[in-house]
Amino acid sequence: MISNEVKQRLISIVGLENYDDSKAGRLVYSYDATPQFQSLPDAVIAPRNTKEVSEIVKICNEHRIPIVPRGSGTNLCAGTCPTEGGLVLIFKHMNNILEIDEENLTVTVQPGVITLDLIKAVEAKGLFYPPDPSSMKISTIGGSINENSGGLRGLKYGVTRDYVMALEVVLANGDIIRTGGKLAKDVAGYDLTRLFVGSEGTLGIITEATLKLIPMPETKKTMLALYQDLEAAARSVSQIIANKIIPTTLEFLDQPTLEVVEAYAQIGLPTDVKAVLLIEQDGPSEVVERDIKKMEEICKKEQAVSVKVAQSEAEADALRTARRSALSALARLKPTTILEDATVPRSEIAKMVKAINEVAEKYNVKICTFGHAGDGNLHPTCPTDARDREEIERVEKAFEEIFAKAIELGGTITGEHGVGIMKAPYLEWKLGREGIAAMKAIKNALDPNNIMNPGKVFAKSTRKRVVITR
Amino acid sequence: MISNEVKQRLISIVGLENYDDSKAGRLVYSYDATPQFQSLPDAVIAPRNTKEVSEIVKICNEHRIPIVPRGSGTNLCAGTCPTEGGLVLIFKHMNNILEIDEENLTVTVQPGVITLDLIKAVEAKGLFYPPDPSSMKISTIGGSINENSGGLRGLKYGVTRDYVMALEVVLANGDIIRTGGKLAKDVAGYDLTRLFVGSEGTLGIITEATLKLIPMPETKKTMLALYQDLEAAARSVSQIIANKIIPTTLEFLDQPTLEVVEAYAQIGLPTDVKAVLLIEQDGPSEVVERDIKKMEEICKKEQAVSVKVAQSEAEADALRTARRSALSALARLKPTTILEDATVPRSEIAKMVKAINEVAEKYNVKICTFGHAGDGNLHPTCPTDARDREEIERVEKAFEEIFAKAIELGGTITGEHGVGIMKAPYLEWKLGREGIAAMKAIKNALDPNNIMNPGKVFAKSTRKRVVITR
Repeated sequence: MISNEVKQRLISIVGLENYDDSKAGRLVYSYDATPQFQSLPDAVIAPRNTKEVSEIVKICNEHRIPIVPRGSGTNLCAGTCPTEGGLVLIFKHMNNILEIDEENLTVTVQPGVITLDLIKAVEAKGLFYPPDPSSMKISTIGGSINENSGGLRGLKYGVTRDYVMALEVVLANGDIIRTGGKLAKDVAGYDLTRLFVGSEGTLGIITEATLKLIPMPETKKTMLALYQDLEAAARSVSQIIANKIIPTTLEFLDQPTLEVVEAYAQIGLPTDVKAVLLIEQDGPSEVVERDIKKMEEICKKEQAVSVKVAQSEAEADALRTARRSALSALARLKPTTILEDATVPRSEIAKMVKAINEVAEKYNVKICTFGHAGDGNLHPTCPTDARDREEIERVEKAFEEIFAKAIELGGTITGEHGVGIMKAPYLEWKLGREGIAAMKAIKNALDPNNIMNPGKVFAKSTRKRVVITR
Repeated sequence: MISNEVKQRLISIVGLENYDDSKAGRLVYSYDATPQFQSLPDAVIAPRNTKEVSEIVKICNEHRIPIVPRGSGTNLCAGTCPTEGGLVLIFKHMNNILEIDEENLTVTVQPGVITLDLIKAVEAKGLFYPPDPSSMKISTIGGSINENSGGLRGLKYGVTRDYVMALEVVLANGDIIRTGGKLAKDVAGYDLTRLFVGSEGTLGIITEATLKLIPMPETKKTMLALYQDLEAAARSVSQIIANKIIPTTLEFLDQPTLEVVEAYAQIGLPTDVKAVLLIEQDGPSEVVERDIKKMEEICKKEQAVSVKVAQSEAEADALRTARRSALSALARLKPTTILEDATVPRSEIAKMVKAINEVAEKYNVKICTFGHAGDGNLHPTCPTDARDREEIERVEKAFEEIFAKAIELGGTITGEHGVGIMKAPYLEWKLGREGIAAMKAIKNALDPNNIMNPGKVFAKSTRKRVVITR
């Protein structure tokens, strides 16, 4: 698909060492963290700066070559699987923290910076970047922005979108634009910044970002509430909010997840209860103490069988780490792990968990559920085996029903994982024909030749997952 | 411009009593709060529901009739002046609070609800809607969303955009779409919600919105710091943030503004100092006490000549009201008041205020400056007389230089007032040719016949304000 002439032009931009069309090199970038999707790119390219990105894009636009920008490929929607071939564009040279501005509380980064490195760098200056996707140890900030990553601190602090103040973006025609600024307020034209956040690389290539920081919370406390009744756990979530407390974290794990996580992490998590809530609050110590005490009371009143406040930061950290390892722990069970993120209004959590369990029973599949209860953002996860086509078909049907139920409850098909290819067939359920048409019009306006991560977000057909091998 | 046949079709949708093409009716809607802009619409229409809006839009799209959606017309960018005629669409029938959802912390409203009414309604339930534009007593929430209104609480709580969770929008083709939901996390497709926020009615007509609420802060304290030196005031702002305190409000008023405000409000404001900072903090009482004390120390250290904490809510309210009345007070001075909102990164406030004063001197015009110092969002305001063409020309030149300086300092031409017609000629300074082209492509994709508030945001020519009389 890439002619020798085009290849030579691309090499002349980035240098021979930054263009790889070897079979081995292409294989490495033929898949991401999403099971069941694999497709070879034509080449992998590593630009060294924005100008090179722009030059690459211009050539791709001229020759209709797909470009898939990719961070660490940790997304779970096949968003970086190069299903239509073309170039996978990686940011190994564009991975610097450019500036931490303590006066304006911003950090300016290149897309290849690892999210946790960014978090640690700003924490060293007493500043806080709240979005904390579970993948943060390896995922890049560019990926986070393209996917609008969430995380465990979303309830109180919001998601990646809420921290992106300015972007440098290379458009499909090669134009380099800058959106926003180090500005608390800016209404000069449409909000392109937030249009690019979460656009999954389909509208342009993000080459620089300025992110908002906040002062580091002074203290933090962690507690664990155990339940023999799912509904009691869900009621506790509602009651905490109804009592006007917004904790940093309000995580839910069901019994099957607990068992697997404990087997993996071995930190003494109870495995004989139906559900746990992992709750954290941060802020000034007086407020944290008061909120934790109040939440303890609420959980007990709502029939928690036990409530335990972590006695040390080490204990709290073990709990957090256990929660963060849920996906890895579940992934040990079977060859294939399908993790979803159906999301509902917070008030509908109990109904949603109940529906997930009924669906799992109906299709005779194992589904472990955990997730961000305070956000209504659940991760029903199915350990399965992609080689067992019969079971996979049941799994697909089960998830289809789960998505339908989420929509029915006023929810969405994806809270934080993105649409990619994986969820594209269901997008119309959430947006309607008219909503999709509006989004497609925007895509077409900014990328008329459809070179920017083609095949993502918008499905070729609806109501069926598309499993592609190329 | 509207034929009799089209008029009859429009009347058949909304009823005779909701269609007004009388000279008097049209005159009332020929201008908004922006000086120097006036233009007659062909008719004023008041739909009763979303379906009627959709039917109206379809007819307008068919006949290329401009539609200007309008709340209370308090915007300061001529954003609702019907410069190309057509229909002014008003929401006097669509002005209900539809639901306050205490479990999910949301409020769902129609566009015609007055912002302060919404704030009071949710406060009665112990909930808080932070955006508080100075116009909130009369401005509508629909207008707030279209303009992405800011206000005095922006530093800590953000702007309108940060509170819009879901929208119902009628597109130019008459399609009715719903974006977002009562969802803390939702990445199903592009972020259309925030694309419509601040789009000034140029992309579609917002017919319903679900807004995020937060728990009402427990307490609030207000203080006033006086300075004989502008730079000392600016340094105090920087030092407060550098000390990791984010107050709710950090307002700046210069001496000329103080004088005028005191003459109007008569609450004993000092008029013999060069600048004051009005500072508020809210939250749990322990934290508020601590922050106020710390800020007092910082202001004193930075050479405030006096720092006074309001001793009662009545005293605090008088200070807030005085600040909110700045525009009204200034408007008494001269027949015409031009208020701008050049915005810079917080660190550049001192430079910007200095530049404004130099520019005022250079062009021999009076400019009073006040604004949201914590946001870097300043309101240089010029009392003038539109009939004095010679002076107006100097005023325009002065503001042109002020915008240029804001851009030079990494700022923007408008922080919270919008582009409209007023700022359209300068938009390219902020966005560049490429940025404008990207925005125009989106506008054209969603509104190919340019019926949605045409003539706004994008200027026909750049670098000159366009004063239009029709």
